[in-house]
Amino acid sequence: MKLIRFGLPGAEKPGIVTEKGTFDVSAFGEDFGEKFFETDGLKRLAQWWEKNGSSCAEVPAGTRLGAPVQRPSKIICIGLNYADHAKETNAAIPKEPIVFFKSTSSLVGPNDNLIIPRNSVKTDWEVELAVVIGKKASYVEEKDALDYVAGYALHNDYSEREFQLERGGQWVKGKSNDTFAPLGPWLVTKDEIKDVDNMRLWLTVNGKTMQDGTTANLIFKIPFLVSYLSQFMTLLPGDVISTGTPAGVGLGMNPQVYLKPGDVVELGIDGLGSSKQTAVAYK
Amino acid sequence: MKLIRFGLPGAEKPGIVTEKGTFDVSAFGEDFGEKFFETDGLKRLAQWWEKNGSSCAEVPAGTRLGAPVQRPSKIICIGLNYADHAKETNAAIPKEPIVFFKSTSSLVGPNDNLIIPRNSVKTDWEVELAVVIGKKASYVEEKDALDYVAGYALHNDYSEREFQLERGGQWVKGKSNDTFAPLGPWLVTKDEIKDVDNMRLWLTVNGKTMQDGTTANLIFKIPFLVSYLSQFMTLLPGDVISTGTPAGVGLGMNPQVYLKPGDVVELGIDGLGSSKQTAVAYK
Repeated sequence: MKLIRFGLPGAEKPGIVTEKGTFDVSAFGEDFGEKFFETDGLKRLAQWWEKNGSSCAEVPAGTRLGAPVQRPSKIICIGLNYADHAKETNAAIPKEPIVFFKSTSSLVGPNDNLIIPRNSVKTDWEVELAVVIGKKASYVEEKDALDYVAGYALHNDYSEREFQLERGGQWVKGKSNDTFAPLGPWLVTKDEIKDVDNMRLWLTVNGKTMQDGTTANLIFKIPFLVSYLSQFMTLLPGDVISTGTPAGVGLGMNPQVYLKPGDVVELGIDGLGSSKQTAVAYK
Repeated sequence: MKLIRFGLPGAEKPGIVTEKGTFDVSAFGEDFGEKFFETDGLKRLAQWWEKNGSSCAEVPAGTRLGAPVQRPSKIICIGLNYADHAKETNAAIPKEPIVFFKSTSSLVGPNDNLIIPRNSVKTDWEVELAVVIGKKASYVEEKDALDYVAGYALHNDYSEREFQLERGGQWVKGKSNDTFAPLGPWLVTKDEIKDVDNMRLWLTVNGKTMQDGTTANLIFKIPFLVSYLSQFMTLLPGDVISTGTPAGVGLGMNPQVYLKPGDVVELGIDGLGSSKQTAVAYK
């Protein structure tokens, strides 16, 4: 299944994308959040859709999409998880995963505007494959880890490099501004993805290719990451893990390139769709 | 007002502590979470209490307390915000606040057991004054910052020092295990605190005083912190900001001292009450 949430910010309704179109499933009566996932919502929704799908209305083309999951308890990110990206930022290849959080208040829809924060001069992009957790995970073994995954989504881990790296301490300051986590268009359930370790991911700025990588180059793979993280914290249903970005970010260029109002960022991952954000100044 | 939440984990009810006792206010019909704060809940509850308080039942002594706020969107912590603590950990005094997140899944009641994580050898304590945000704050000026504060609570920012400092990258790995954020007993509303910049805070382990400080020694004060953080992220109603810990943590001792099963940690802040956690092994 491909799940979406559509409508005005803060009032999104649940939907499903099939080969026949995009359908409103708000009659199912649940949003795609923690409770939905922890009560086997994906399975229940599939059963409901079998019976009721034919009576669901289509979502009009052009309708705004929100993030395909409700605000999760956490957005966990993995740093420097592609060797080429570690190299371009002059960082060592990590011996174990580098973990940081983004604020969940940074979550927005896949095609919402990127707001460049006030006083920002180094707003950068990072195309990433995000994992959505399907059930509560604590001290999970790597061999069982995929049982705890609901599916995958496209994520742009926007990063203000001055806030992240030059303002003292931890990275969270450069990762958490509003609109810094466009997620989606879809949550694609695990069963629809043939080989998560072999997916192309790309990003362009104003049509110029900046990132073009493959998840085959992930240093730490998804089952390892889920298991690893679950040693340090309980992963809750609906939580998002963003698995890192390949080479081609603005920070890694010579000279460095950062976003300015009017720039258009487009990105995609095979099978997970594409998204597009236009940069605007904070007003 | 002093707000509490009482009852079984995950099924807490709201309550109020007055000079006459502790009362169940679940008839008010709202839990103390984001929606409550953002809809002027403190004021509405006070008005409701005026009319209905006399018919509220007392909460039986010995009832378990939960955290005094529902799970927030974020728990933001300030690192090294007391000069004596920076010195004991051989860190420089920060030029601007060091910011990190704890997972919100680490939040528990003030007297719940501390679960020492599997494979932990360096579980440490940190008594802290926590600020609870009362309304949405983005780019707030320092002079207006206290308008965005609902009140204050006692917090123990438990930290696994090996996970935090020796496992690569960011601190979040050592800050996010389950039970690592006991909050409360109370959320004390801002109007009840005469001078938040002059509050004694203390912590004992097995009856021995380990930390004994005062918020007079905070390097970055609360209005500055609220304003500062709001430049990097939107603070949502109910969000928790933990303002840092004074000297006396296990990491700073020579030799270092860490918690083991059976240890009893007690802590308190003038006017914000006290809490007590017993360390137990992960089972």
